[in-house]
Amino acid sequence: MATVKEYKYSDIEIGTRESFEVSITTEMEEKFRSLTGDVNPMHCDDSFAKEMGGYSSHIVFGMMTASFISTLAGVYLPGKYSLIHSVEMGFTKPVFAGDVLTVTGECIDKQDGLNLIVLKVTIKNASQNTVSKGKMKIKVLL
Amino acid sequence: MATVKEYKYSDIEIGTRESFEVSITTEMEEKFRSLTGDVNPMHCDDSFAKEMGGYSSHIVFGMMTASFISTLAGVYLPGKYSLIHSVEMGFTKPVFAGDVLTVTGECIDKQDGLNLIVLKVTIKNASQNTVSKGKMKIKVLL
Repeated sequence: MATVKEYKYSDIEIGTRESFEVSITTEMEEKFRSLTGDVNPMHCDDSFAKEMGGYSSHIVFGMMTASFISTLAGVYLPGKYSLIHSVEMGFTKPVFAGDVLTVTGECIDKQDGLNLIVLKVTIKNASQNTVSKGKMKIKVLL
Repeated sequence: MATVKEYKYSDIEIGTRESFEVSITTEMEEKFRSLTGDVNPMHCDDSFAKEMGGYSSHIVFGMMTASFISTLAGVYLPGKYSLIHSVEMGFTKPVFAGDVLTVTGECIDKQDGLNLIVLKVTIKNASQNTVSKGKMKIKVLL
């Protein structure tokens, strides 16, 4: 398990960046399905995903991929003193079980007084294709 | 388990709306923590959440609350033929284990040709406070 970073607001500059890898497994898909109750066939039925989306198999829930930005904020940048204010994410390529994703956050803005940082978020697969990207605004509590 | 709705693009009008309830449990929090590896203390350590946030106890992961918009799209509106394109969510009030949330999506725009619908999303607790709100853009596959 990763050690929780402890960036304070004043430690973070435009350009401060953190990154980590996640290996996507079918167990994760099961957990997300059982947590959310999202039984949509695109995310469990290979033949439906082939027929309707032209994919080689079922694809991972976009919001499961997005859930790793919780980890980005809460463990990596800023880590301990994080409170997510808002998020924007787009899904650009499919993710499959077995993929190894790299989640990267980079500070692109700071709002002094409110102690808010804005992270640009990029999630890439092992072929360096961006599968999801967006921004999140985080309050840094210290 | 809810039956997966089967709205087609042409079935959906501006104002089409779906809603469902979710009871938030500590088991859900455990699942989300184990799925994401987000071990941030705000979401498991009551005394940290009191000290740093002034909350009565630890608060639920914002991105866990947001994960129910996967269910909104994939099961309720449009249901079977859903493919999420992008999401924007803001977190306005804390959520606690034991809360019963109502997740509502309402179609506020359609982009013909691309078969995209835009849902306004509102998540309220049992006191009718909005805990999270935003928008999602969804491709409807049929």
